[in-house]
Amino acid sequence: MADPRFFKKAGPFDLKTIAAKISAEIRNDDGSLKIDDVAPLDAAGPSQISFFDNPKYKDALTQTKAGAVILAPSAVEFAPEGAALLVVDMAYPSYAAVALMFYPHVSAAPGISPAAHVDPSAKLADDVTIGTGAVISAGVEIGAGSSVGPNTVIGEGVMIGRNCAIAANVTLSHTLIGDRVIIHPGARIGQDGFGFAMGAHGHQKIPQLGRVVIQDDVDIGANTTIDRGSGPDTVIGAGSKIDNQVQLAHNVVIGRNCVIVSQVGISGSAKLGDFVVAGGQVGIAGHLEIGDGAMLAARTGVPSDLPGGQQYGGTPARPMSQWRRELAAVAILAKRRKKKSG
Amino acid sequence: MADPRFFKKAGPFDLKTIAAKISAEIRNDDGSLKIDDVAPLDAAGPSQISFFDNPKYKDALTQTKAGAVILAPSAVEFAPEGAALLVVDMAYPSYAAVALMFYPHVSAAPGISPAAHVDPSAKLADDVTIGTGAVISAGVEIGAGSSVGPNTVIGEGVMIGRNCAIAANVTLSHTLIGDRVIIHPGARIGQDGFGFAMGAHGHQKIPQLGRVVIQDDVDIGANTTIDRGSGPDTVIGAGSKIDNQVQLAHNVVIGRNCVIVSQVGISGSAKLGDFVVAGGQVGIAGHLEIGDGAMLAARTGVPSDLPGGQQYGGTPARPMSQWRRELAAVAILAKRRKKKSG
Amino acid sequence: MADPRFFKKAGPFDLKTIAAKISAEIRNDDGSLKIDDVAPLDAAGPSQISFFDNPKYKDALTQTKAGAVILAPSAVEFAPEGAALLVVDMAYPSYAAVALMFYPHVSAAPGISPAAHVDPSAKLADDVTIGTGAVISAGVEIGAGSSVGPNTVIGEGVMIGRNCAIAANVTLSHTLIGDRVIIHPGARIGQDGFGFAMGAHGHQKIPQLGRVVIQDDVDIGANTTIDRGSGPDTVIGAGSKIDNQVQLAHNVVIGRNCVIVSQVGISGSAKLGDFVVAGGQVGIAGHLEIGDGAMLAARTGVPSDLPGGQQYGGTPARPMSQWRRELAAVAILAKRRKKKSG
Repeated sequence: MADPRFFKKAGPFDLKTIAAKISAEIRNDDGSLKIDDVAPLDAAGPSQISFFDNPKYKDALTQTKAGAVILAPSAVEFAPEGAALLVVDMAYPSYAAVALMFYPHVSAAPGISPAAHVDPSAKLADDVTIGTGAVISAGVEIGAGSSVGPNTVIGEGVMIGRNCAIAANVTLSHTLIGDRVIIHPGARIGQDGFGFAMGAHGHQKIPQLGRVVIQDDVDIGANTTIDRGSGPDTVIGAGSKIDNQVQLAHNVVIGRNCVIVSQVGISGSAKLGDFVVAGGQVGIAGHLEIGDGAMLAARTGVPSDLPGGQQYGGTPARPMSQWRRELAAVAILAKRRKKKSG
Repeated sequence: MADPRFFKKAGPFDLKTIAAKISAEIRNDDGSLKIDDVAPLDAAGPSQISFFDNPKYKDALTQTKAGAVILAPSAVEFAPEGAALLVVDMAYPSYAAVALMFYPHVSAAPGISPAAHVDPSAKLADDVTIGTGAVISAGVEIGAGSSVGPNTVIGEGVMIGRNCAIAANVTLSHTLIGDRVIIHPGARIGQDGFGFAMGAHGHQKIPQLGRVVIQDDVDIGANTTIDRGSGPDTVIGAGSKIDNQVQLAHNVVIGRNCVIVSQVGISGSAKLGDFVVAGGQVGIAGHLEIGDGAMLAARTGVPSDLPGGQQYGGTPARPMSQWRRELAAVAILAKRRKKKSG
Repeated sequence: MADPRFFKKAGPFDLKTIAAKISAEIRNDDGSLKIDDVAPLDAAGPSQISFFDNPKYKDALTQTKAGAVILAPSAVEFAPEGAALLVVDMAYPSYAAVALMFYPHVSAAPGISPAAHVDPSAKLADDVTIGTGAVISAGVEIGAGSSVGPNTVIGEGVMIGRNCAIAANVTLSHTLIGDRVIIHPGARIGQDGFGFAMGAHGHQKIPQLGRVVIQDDVDIGANTTIDRGSGPDTVIGAGSKIDNQVQLAHNVVIGRNCVIVSQVGISGSAKLGDFVVAGGQVGIAGHLEIGDGAMLAARTGVPSDLPGGQQYGGTPARPMSQWRRELAAVAILAKRRKKKSG
């Protein structure tokens, strides 16, 4: 399935081997079926394995020609008769593990490109990879197994932990990064925040003295921007995943295992708890707190504190059920007016 | 008009030559008028040619000092007495053709900068241009007449067709590009999408195995991000124009000749038909379909499928007329309440 | 307070010296108190100075352990008994000046990196700094005291004034820049705007002939995009501050001392007066005017002209008080319906 220009493929594997990898129960097969690739339900053939996770694709499941399908027990009844089944609790992460069997992550051979610019005072572990044209400034430290992409610029004193992947054309400064952090191309991390004392004759820049602290297992999307703290630090908690084109202003604190979808903007000094989910294009005002496990629907605008453990929508943000009721009330009101005037 | 620091100018041309180029009917002149530049209505002088296309600028037309104006038959009555007129069906594209007469596109002399980094296995057509500091990785292929800007990074195996212009500081990976594609600075194309199996103890990354396929005659704006497919490909149909800071998630399929204005975000696996127009800051949820010719007003939020051939506005998206009625109903309701309490 | 990896610190200073710098009245101390750092209210200790400006942090003021606090006369009553006070009219800009005493801006020693690529025809003042891998094209002029970061690309003919700071990985073309302008990493300035004559068979690109003109004392945020004019110029007025990920389309004119917060999008040919404030994620349609001193709440959508000197909110934009009344009216309406049906 995956384009050989971009991937080296492993396999084939028999179904027994795959099932063992993900602790799945095999149905409709003795485990000897040879599988040579993963593929989506609507494209898979008899020697390929697919997965079912999103109810929107129930028809695709019923009609699939895949040789085997990874699915939850509740989905078995919708599977086609011919297909071998790998029954698991969670189909999506199981699929991920199987995809990695066929397309194992292959790192480039570690090494420092002769066309990289590494300051002599930088401390690089032995098996670090530095791409062509990358700039590693004075005092930078990079841990074992980490890589820095071509033309990326790492400013003075930045620390990067182990097994991090910093992509191409990234800019980092005033930043401390933990282990296993992934930063996609074009991200800008650690530049001065938007701090001005506004005045009637112009606006005076406030010195920005803080850092960005990125804990372990964080992902940062392409062209996302994260400003350094103004005095306190800007902090991204362990395990949080940040999508593309997200803007995090100075002093923002993101808890652990949050999910921040693309084009979200979070203003200065806002604090998010753990496991907060913010849908695409959400906007969050400054100097407020959002509790653990709060879920913000796409495009929600948050002007003030929100308790955790609930869903919110609309601008200004309201509990999801209230927002839905209000939308319905307005629709009915407008319909009545139309009838009267019609 | 155009700053000589940035442009080489051609001309002057007489009005007859210009009219022939755009198949215009000349009025108020015998075609011998010498024109030496293009200029906006409010800045043009007697030896310059302007155009009228947007009704907002009717006053500027009436008061223009331009020697000649390109306009539609319906606008002739608003033109000033003295001006020569070039009457055409479509004033805007005709102006474009005339502007190109005065400011023809001049490519840099093709050639590979000695400070570019080109892998020996890359296949470059003879007249390709590669800028200073650009990185062309193993297995890349670039067709005749295409150019790659300074400090741009092209990842392994990427294919670029003929007469493409890839600007500076761009990152491409896992991408196949057709002919005559323009990519503006800072675009990020082909990085891993935001695919995680979310769990109570953290979020597991799903391997991303697909590509980005960009068909002929597509434009991609500055700092726009387009993620590779997760298994299927992300596809941008021929002739579609994408503005700056647009986010296209994995598996998004954009039809032909769509127009996607800046800061639009389209979530994973959404499918747009042909000739869809999305205004600025529109948000489109994942796994849905938008029909051919649908027009989304700026800032529309689309949570579910939309039939084509209609205009939509609001969040959640409603037919334009319904959204307008609802806004009006709310305004009246609030006014009544104010009166009562006032 | 500030991480020594990223900062060189000055001081200590006695309170008298600090008070003199900001013309403050000292209370609760004879001026001999030694201060060795700045710190936020909730982190400061007895040898550190803090400031109070935002009423949200009144409790932090009351409980602070800071040795001294900068504050306005009206806040004195909330200060803890032990703390020395520096009483000033405007606490925030006074704090800025004090922070600069402890953390003076240290420029890198000026000089052109041997790994920069400077065209021989470029004119650079003597004390200009050009970073590693930066590309300075033919005809570029850069004034005294300005710096260009690593891997930044400056296109042909661009002019940059004095004491400007252009960060890393920036792209500039077709642009004229005044003095003391700060451009953060990843900004894209001067590329072609989104100009097409849309047609039933495809969309024809309109040549873009204008420039971007950035006046003195402007700040431009990370990954912000500013397109060149189509014929007229795109103009950013003196003293205006533009945050991260802002999109300014061709021919936009921003007045003096405007504040444009992150993720704002402004469409083609829109004109903003002086001292306009646009909150985060605001969207402004094309070909309209916004008057001096207008304030747009975060996420406001502006479809048409707005008079200055007022606050606006909502989409479409309404005067703030009207928007609030409408939100309240809808909430009441929905509650009544719930009661009836409940």
